[in-house]
Amino acid sequence: MNQKLGNAIVGQSGGPTAAINATLSGVIRGVREGVHGGVIQTLYGMRNGVEGFLREELINLTECFDDEDKLELLERTPASALGSCRKRLPDPHSGDGIYDRIFSIFRKYDIRYFFYIGGNDSMDTVAKLSEYARSKGEDIVILGIPKTIDNDLMETDHTPGYGSAAKYVAVATQEIIRDCAVYRIPAVTIIEIMGRDSGWLTAASAVGRKINGIEPDLVYLPERSFSNTQFLSDVKRVLEDHPNVVVAVSEGLRYANGCYVSESESGEPRDEYGHLRLSGTGKVLEMLIRREIGCKVRSVELNLPQRCAAHLLSKTDITESIQIGRSAVVFAAIKGITSAMLTIIRCSNQPYRIEIGCVAAAGVANRVKNMEDPYINSEGNHITDACCDYIAPLIQGEMGSKFVNGLPMHFVF
Amino acid sequence: MNQKLGNAIVGQSGGPTAAINATLSGVIRGVREGVHGGVIQTLYGMRNGVEGFLREELINLTECFDDEDKLELLERTPASALGSCRKRLPDPHSGDGIYDRIFSIFRKYDIRYFFYIGGNDSMDTVAKLSEYARSKGEDIVILGIPKTIDNDLMETDHTPGYGSAAKYVAVATQEIIRDCAVYRIPAVTIIEIMGRDSGWLTAASAVGRKINGIEPDLVYLPERSFSNTQFLSDVKRVLEDHPNVVVAVSEGLRYANGCYVSESESGEPRDEYGHLRLSGTGKVLEMLIRREIGCKVRSVELNLPQRCAAHLLSKTDITESIQIGRSAVVFAAIKGITSAMLTIIRCSNQPYRIEIGCVAAAGVANRVKNMEDPYINSEGNHITDACCDYIAPLIQGEMGSKFVNGLPMHFVF
Repeated sequence: MNQKLGNAIVGQSGGPTAAINATLSGVIRGVREGVHGGVIQTLYGMRNGVEGFLREELINLTECFDDEDKLELLERTPASALGSCRKRLPDPHSGDGIYDRIFSIFRKYDIRYFFYIGGNDSMDTVAKLSEYARSKGEDIVILGIPKTIDNDLMETDHTPGYGSAAKYVAVATQEIIRDCAVYRIPAVTIIEIMGRDSGWLTAASAVGRKINGIEPDLVYLPERSFSNTQFLSDVKRVLEDHPNVVVAVSEGLRYANGCYVSESESGEPRDEYGHLRLSGTGKVLEMLIRREIGCKVRSVELNLPQRCAAHLLSKTDITESIQIGRSAVVFAAIKGITSAMLTIIRCSNQPYRIEIGCVAAAGVANRVKNMEDPYINSEGNHITDACCDYIAPLIQGEMGSKFVNGLPMHFVF
Repeated sequence: MNQKLGNAIVGQSGGPTAAINATLSGVIRGVREGVHGGVIQTLYGMRNGVEGFLREELINLTECFDDEDKLELLERTPASALGSCRKRLPDPHSGDGIYDRIFSIFRKYDIRYFFYIGGNDSMDTVAKLSEYARSKGEDIVILGIPKTIDNDLMETDHTPGYGSAAKYVAVATQEIIRDCAVYRIPAVTIIEIMGRDSGWLTAASAVGRKINGIEPDLVYLPERSFSNTQFLSDVKRVLEDHPNVVVAVSEGLRYANGCYVSESESGEPRDEYGHLRLSGTGKVLEMLIRREIGCKVRSVELNLPQRCAAHLLSKTDITESIQIGRSAVVFAAIKGITSAMLTIIRCSNQPYRIEIGCVAAAGVANRVKNMEDPYINSEGNHITDACCDYIAPLIQGEMGSKFVNGLPMHFVF
């Protein structure tokens, strides 16, 4: 037990997701419900992560969230309600004055608990603040809470935010497959899905296989080197079987030489000023098929809606996002754990059941969790049944937006 | 009264929408419920429009839809369940044998009622078949039922399919605006929305103004000539006011010289009707801003989900789509109207109330309804309140998908 009477602060950092506000809500709920055993007095929120914190742009969340309706609305609001940043802290032993500034603000507001919701860059911030506090003997609890649609954080079974993004990708893919089925002429549709380094989100396009039997014909992931030759051969083979071919590709596909597919295309059109027209992976592969196969072809980049489609949340994801936020309050105030990131442990898949754990933040910072080999087929052009089994529980259930006059309501500070 | 005892057939043609199956369901419901006064015996569906009809690929819809559950599922299924085509019929006086073939199939299956659900290209088919039947004294009722996400059909207040696409555009835009608000650095996000010739769907991005106050900063429509100079000036002005600028643009924007903004895209093929395949307006404008303003900029093409996002249907749209399908059966069998397209007449806006009417199909075929002047602001860079009032009733209400294990179910023949 290491209970410290004082205040707490929570921030959001890195790219937005549709579930990061649910985790914020979980922290607020934990404080409101007193799961900290009475030690936390006021919960502050920092605007725009540590950037806003350095400007002392704090919001009193205890006062702000005085009823259940606001929390339920917050849980259905996409992106980071507190605002975000991508600030990288310097080495904690560099002598940079930024750490003195941060810790003086902690003292000024009597902040004993610091919660930071983010991805692996944000865990770098958690690890550095923890290291500085340790080296200076500062008595503050610093915890990271994971979020990312990419699902690429080490040490956690999956990340809050992934389930909702995966559900959006799975649903949009199924609807696009329907749309593509209406004509009979040979046609290829390429769906480009987010994921610079890992294929988890692209894999979600095929989770329907074991749910309703609907999935793309081919799925290409950044965990495998991409080959134009194999790709064209795969597409031609499927076209011989049926006219409407749907292919899911990750934005981060690379050739064996390490070049991204999206930066490699030669002979790409230039604009009137001679600038190379920067294309996405899907667009490059669309042009490849038009040139080499010559059939009708188009590409669809799912783009921002993947991470902000709050009208189509996974109830499992939002429930877990709230749970991990609430648990952070318990881990900090009751268990006295610091310098750590909370994790999700999958105890059982059928029935699906999780527990919340934690690991040292330093072990997560700046690392990427790739898809494991058993999740990718031997040809490297699809996912396995085991991968479907891994993803399926994470997209279960719907939250339902609060619609007013046809549009979903969002929470705004 | 012009009642003919016999069979009926229905087909779907042109680009898919999220509501075209609801209209199909309406026709089936009308026949099942006997609103034809007992004259229609069997309702057939043609696969892939007139193309499948010419191959006699017919489905007995009376047998197929024997319960309510299937119809409710059909109404929540995107794209054309019967399949579609883009076949253009020749001049009915050309002497082409295709008309003899079509009418011999009508006689073979005792088809007295022909329903064709489609856009202005499909109304061309309805008008030509009607003209041929008239010139030959053929006793068959031929009716067109409108659909298109573009809302660009003449003579109807709006088109079935538009309301659901508009709702998707409005919701996705609001979510993207939230996503863009998380950082404080100056950034421009361009949302590219479908609409080759008319701006109705792009206009829907701003319908939130009078619902919850959330809308893009700027909206550019094909009804006004696009100017790079005005665009850059507009964006700079907004950037001086706040850092996150969101701009909605129609894919069909053109310069004063008539060239599409996207037209420098090389190798874009034209479709069977000679329409340019447009893509890339947002990308072209993204590069313009990067070059001329130099701030962070990205473009998001909403793409196919605009027309197939059946998980986010407008209840108003689906209700009307069913109603117009059912009404077609009444207009054909009871009122004896032929050579016509059914229309939606807005009798009142507050409270919103419509009636179903009809006009000669020839007056709709191959024409485009543009946005009226009172719906566009004087600067040509946004919509007016009157336009919001026009769109708002069409996005009201939600249908709710039938989710099983996290994914929406669809109807498949």
